[in-house]
Amino acid sequence: MRKIDDLKTPAFLVDKAVLERNARRMTDFAHLRGVRLRPHVKTHKTLEAACIQTEGGFEGLTVSTLAEADFYKGAGFKDITYAFPIHPAKLPEVEQISEGIKLHILVDHQEQIQAVQEYASRNKTRFSVLLKIDCGYHRAGVDWSSAQAMQLARKLDSGRDIHLEGILTHAGHSYHAPNPPKVAKIARQERDVMLRFAEKLKEDGIECPTISIGSTPTVMQAKSLEGITEIRPGNYIFFDKMQLELGSCQLEDCAATVLTTVVSHYPGRNQMLIDAGALALSKDPGAVHKFPGRDPLYGAVLGHPQLKITSLSQEHGIITSDSSIPFQSHPIGSRLRIIPNHSCLAAACFSELHALEGEKVEVWPTIQGW
Amino acid sequence: MRKIDDLKTPAFLVDKAVLERNARRMTDFAHLRGVRLRPHVKTHKTLEAACIQTEGGFEGLTVSTLAEADFYKGAGFKDITYAFPIHPAKLPEVEQISEGIKLHILVDHQEQIQAVQEYASRNKTRFSVLLKIDCGYHRAGVDWSSAQAMQLARKLDSGRDIHLEGILTHAGHSYHAPNPPKVAKIARQERDVMLRFAEKLKEDGIECPTISIGSTPTVMQAKSLEGITEIRPGNYIFFDKMQLELGSCQLEDCAATVLTTVVSHYPGRNQMLIDAGALALSKDPGAVHKFPGRDPLYGAVLGHPQLKITSLSQEHGIITSDSSIPFQSHPIGSRLRIIPNHSCLAAACFSELHALEGEKVEVWPTIQGW
Repeated sequence: MRKIDDLKTPAFLVDKAVLERNARRMTDFAHLRGVRLRPHVKTHKTLEAACIQTEGGFEGLTVSTLAEADFYKGAGFKDITYAFPIHPAKLPEVEQISEGIKLHILVDHQEQIQAVQEYASRNKTRFSVLLKIDCGYHRAGVDWSSAQAMQLARKLDSGRDIHLEGILTHAGHSYHAPNPPKVAKIARQERDVMLRFAEKLKEDGIECPTISIGSTPTVMQAKSLEGITEIRPGNYIFFDKMQLELGSCQLEDCAATVLTTVVSHYPGRNQMLIDAGALALSKDPGAVHKFPGRDPLYGAVLGHPQLKITSLSQEHGIITSDSSIPFQSHPIGSRLRIIPNHSCLAAACFSELHALEGEKVEVWPTIQGW
Repeated sequence: MRKIDDLKTPAFLVDKAVLERNARRMTDFAHLRGVRLRPHVKTHKTLEAACIQTEGGFEGLTVSTLAEADFYKGAGFKDITYAFPIHPAKLPEVEQISEGIKLHILVDHQEQIQAVQEYASRNKTRFSVLLKIDCGYHRAGVDWSSAQAMQLARKLDSGRDIHLEGILTHAGHSYHAPNPPKVAKIARQERDVMLRFAEKLKEDGIECPTISIGSTPTVMQAKSLEGITEIRPGNYIFFDKMQLELGSCQLEDCAATVLTTVVSHYPGRNQMLIDAGALALSKDPGAVHKFPGRDPLYGAVLGHPQLKITSLSQEHGIITSDSSIPFQSHPIGSRLRIIPNHSCLAAACFSELHALEGEKVEVWPTIQGW
């Protein structure tokens, strides 16, 4: 049996009991609100966590790459949304993965719809498509209030080889909100936009079985999900320092940490060296908007709030403190656990995660790349 | 034969002719200055690039992980410096890899030396050790001017099962310099510190065969390397946007780009979506100190200086511009090549790099993880 002490550092640890509780809570929440849960598995990229997330009666997944789609199909999942707008060169692979399962793709531009339609006609196939709506994040999606949005919906609805599955949005701007009430406001906006657009579709006689919203912060703060059919949170399974700072979770809900070793002491400059650098924690600066004028910190050291990770290079992490570091409490070779700023980007650094269940350590391989 | 048009995006491209020229120039430079070149291969993590780097008569490599050390040993390299301070739990693996080759390890603290000595005595083995000196970067290394530095050197010199190979530093603060003259000043400091410390060792009767300095910016700007025995630049093989901004290279010296596809257009907000996000470019913000008050940009779009990558999330990249984006020149499905801010962190995102030689595409697998 592998033990935590045997693990090389850096390692990505998952507290399985916490992860299971996070999964259960979200599943219960979805049942209570009468929405379907389609977790975004890009957060962990593992089969094991996806199985735990779908134990409660929901079967669908959301993925960020076709490599993930293919991997989860191979593991028996049969209803997958590839939540990144499609482009022409991806269609042969989409067609291949679609065989035997439901694979929904995203569009937000007429040229994409054109390409999907042409490919489908030429290859005598059919695609299930969601129209991506911009509800205010301004990353991807068509502006719901524009004439163009309705034009795209009509084009999809009339597409001979296209099944319009519904509409989808991601309120990623919630990550930049200053406090939970502002997140709640964005959650309301996210729902309102989708319901109003769905209403317009209905008036136009366009069927829209799925109304899908996402983002862990907005789901955690949403006052109502009435009218919404599906939620796609991902980060909730791990949470992280950013979600803590956004008020989405408590410290005890954080299921993911990066295990690192204290490698050296520099008492002269009140610093320690750890072996978790940018390739273990990612250079995500976290919720910087909450701390204007402050240089970013790269994660929270579990159990040692006075320790600050002030700098990361490829393999080096530097810890410092506003008070004197108690070096004797952190001898060279001792280990620390770091809650990453952004657990999705940190997990993606690792080819395997290590899930802890009491003394037992399970190895969960991740599906990296594209 | 694989062709560039067949590559899935995102992909990491290497212009082989440019890489070979960068390698040759650095090799020639080292010969001319009479120093040994021990390239840091963490930049690319491939066998192919390491072979090109060592064609010119130098055999040693610098690595950032033991996974790299083991990989390069397996490929026939026999003289490797593991340039990260050692900690006790790594010693069994170091011992194993050391068998049959020269593997030099780093120390910068007496507890590490103690652990190395104890392990060597207990296991009847011997380690080749470099003392890491802090020449002003303040990341790792012992302050050269402190009494402690000499104590560590003496401890190493008298260690029964330790061979003191020499001293090593990395002037990483050169990456934060505002202009080439300031980089040159840091290069002078880097050399001065090492020569003065080597002089102290000599006075003390301590032999120091290797005086090793590093960092691509300081090597490129160094006026003199007299007295130095070894240089360990890494980034020079690819260069990147940061090195361009530091004045270490010209645009035509940049050998690495991330190939990406234009996925969508948003004329209403003058933006485009590309499929190179944080997992393809890394979230390294680049030389932010050169542009105070400006939000970071995430790489340079080759051939299109007016296009700016203003935002990255896991798989999404957003391009915008101060002028109107000529969308018709970048149709959906067309491709762009991005010079990353930091080529080392971008390359580390990929399990394989694609090296272009005319029409030919070679696949260079990378050694990821630890």
